[in-house]
Amino acid sequence: MRPVSIIGVGCTKFGERWDASLRDMVAEAGIMAIEDACVTGEEIDALYVGNMSGGRFVEQEHIGALISDYAGLSRLHIPSTRVEAACASGGLALRQAVLAVASGYQDVVIAAGVEKMTDVSSGTAADALASAADREWECFFGATFPALYAMMARLHMRRFGTTHEQMAMVAVKNHHHACFNPIAQYHMEVTVDDVENSPMVADPLHVLDCSPISDGAAAVILAPTEMAGRLSDTPVRIAASSQASDTLALHDRRDLTTLDATVHAARAAFSQAGIEPKQVDVAEVHDCFTIGEILAIEDLGFFEKGQGGIATEEGLTALGSSLSVNTSGGLKACGHPVGATGIKQAYEIVLQLRGEAGRRQLEEAEIGLTHNVGGSGGTAIVHILSR
Amino acid sequence: MRPVSIIGVGCTKFGERWDASLRDMVAEAGIMAIEDACVTGEEIDALYVGNMSGGRFVEQEHIGALISDYAGLSRLHIPSTRVEAACASGGLALRQAVLAVASGYQDVVIAAGVEKMTDVSSGTAADALASAADREWECFFGATFPALYAMMARLHMRRFGTTHEQMAMVAVKNHHHACFNPIAQYHMEVTVDDVENSPMVADPLHVLDCSPISDGAAAVILAPTEMAGRLSDTPVRIAASSQASDTLALHDRRDLTTLDATVHAARAAFSQAGIEPKQVDVAEVHDCFTIGEILAIEDLGFFEKGQGGIATEEGLTALGSSLSVNTSGGLKACGHPVGATGIKQAYEIVLQLRGEAGRRQLEEAEIGLTHNVGGSGGTAIVHILSR
Repeated sequence: MRPVSIIGVGCTKFGERWDASLRDMVAEAGIMAIEDACVTGEEIDALYVGNMSGGRFVEQEHIGALISDYAGLSRLHIPSTRVEAACASGGLALRQAVLAVASGYQDVVIAAGVEKMTDVSSGTAADALASAADREWECFFGATFPALYAMMARLHMRRFGTTHEQMAMVAVKNHHHACFNPIAQYHMEVTVDDVENSPMVADPLHVLDCSPISDGAAAVILAPTEMAGRLSDTPVRIAASSQASDTLALHDRRDLTTLDATVHAARAAFSQAGIEPKQVDVAEVHDCFTIGEILAIEDLGFFEKGQGGIATEEGLTALGSSLSVNTSGGLKACGHPVGATGIKQAYEIVLQLRGEAGRRQLEEAEIGLTHNVGGSGGTAIVHILSR
Repeated sequence: MRPVSIIGVGCTKFGERWDASLRDMVAEAGIMAIEDACVTGEEIDALYVGNMSGGRFVEQEHIGALISDYAGLSRLHIPSTRVEAACASGGLALRQAVLAVASGYQDVVIAAGVEKMTDVSSGTAADALASAADREWECFFGATFPALYAMMARLHMRRFGTTHEQMAMVAVKNHHHACFNPIAQYHMEVTVDDVENSPMVADPLHVLDCSPISDGAAAVILAPTEMAGRLSDTPVRIAASSQASDTLALHDRRDLTTLDATVHAARAAFSQAGIEPKQVDVAEVHDCFTIGEILAIEDLGFFEKGQGGIATEEGLTALGSSLSVNTSGGLKACGHPVGATGIKQAYEIVLQLRGEAGRRQLEEAEIGLTHNVGGSGGTAIVHILSR
């Protein structure tokens, strides 16, 4: 398997995009990525698109052909493949694109992600998101998607003494980071009190513990590392790409306070990259709910199990600390257009490693990690990127 | 890229499966395939699943994790990836699995396909299927999915003199073949008069020109050819795997009587396999409507453009002719559980090449081809298999 690098990136503004359809947004992100890399449309060999639920949100499937068409690539008849793993659809598109290039089968490949979520009512959107969980064994019995994470939070609190205040600090930190990110959905600081006084969704998770409903798209362009220097002034190497799965329903899991899919994907990724978690400078992790970031920083090996809440409280994951987590604002404050998130994570890490992250730029960033979760942990995808 | 072979196959009965859910059917097909190959669950490295619209049909996304879970593989935490290209989702799952093995990244990989379509009303199902077309530029203006193929049929009739009687003969042939196939949805002969007297759906296409709404699942297991002899007594080699895309909407196409995606995918496949179309003994082609088979046998290079109707009328594609087309009964009569179809096509060709196709077994079958189309031709996937 040959080494692969990212040679171009693009990302739309995230938020309520009344001005743009699904196809508009992905074309916008794709064009930004193509302009960022020194490639033309004719040089692109294949397209992978992550999208969770075009069928439910915009009544459109066949997303691969749609995107190829609106990216102006249909006349080239190149393969265009949509992949889906719920909220990890974007990370999965990136991984499939990495495999296509690493195998030598294709050279220049676009990995894109997109979701248009605001064209339906919030109830319909919540129900579409619940299709990431086990419809027959969870949702039919009344579990909403926040309720599943609330159960994980409750057990984490009971077993490790994690407090809701610590969870709220994840939101405080990520909203702060988002204020420095021009593409973020929210440019608004929040306090622990704001989180604790916001309406309850599923005890202990308040509205401000939850990532929002968002529209957005992101794209990255990959090439073999041996070609990357010619196609980009600032290529970023993909040091590892891994994927793991777990049971769809929570009740079948070994342990509700650990996402085993994350543990397995992380272990494989660190082994591929030949590095230790402590060598990572910056990480974009899957904070669909505040408890999600606490689980993630433990399961990825950055902190001991049970220590994620305290680590957050002590500021060990804040911008500029030895491990900066969710410098983009994360899903929580940058926004979470589901299929786009995994690609946006790579976009953010690439900006940080290139030194192009503007007001949120880290002083030292050599190695970055992205962590994208599908559903309540049925899928986890981890990538490690390095300068 | 190393050679890849199919070492095991399984397929459920197609039809209105009131007795089985999506997860039941895919587990059933997967277990058949695992039992057919000499492998255990522990030897499986990855899973690819083709599914068009679990979101619309059964309100379930995150299909990869679901299938891994219900196949009993979640404890192994292997990667499980759902791919979607509308009606070509099954073929796309097969192609992604071929790439995974060919690249050396994984050894033993399952490619499965599934669709559960009968749990919703026929109107909802028709609308879900229309999401394979361009929702914004076709469906919103009143085009149904049969209407798109009807336009292709009308132009084919006008330009080449193709008759509706010739289209009806596709249905007559494929229903005849299905009578010999135990998994087929319909075991019922039809006549040209039956087709012409059946209710009109979109002129010139009658109900009996259309493939049905179906439930079903299929699975195949792949391994590197160098390992295949150890894992199967009757491995079948994958001589080519190709994919091409085209515009999503018909009105942007160069020519309405040709699916350019099929032409490009076929050209690439024959080049990979190093054979000519006339060397193919048996083909499963995408007859979602009767005109679809006529277009397919032309675009794949078996007959000159415009000659598909006459070739059908002359019996050149019937069971036992030099090119037997849709010996399974095709989408038309074997049934069309959308995501399963591309895998069922490979299942049928494997049975024919192994000599295990029972009452529909061909005397000489060395080389077979599968052709799976997404939507009205936005995606086409071609595989060539050989003994």
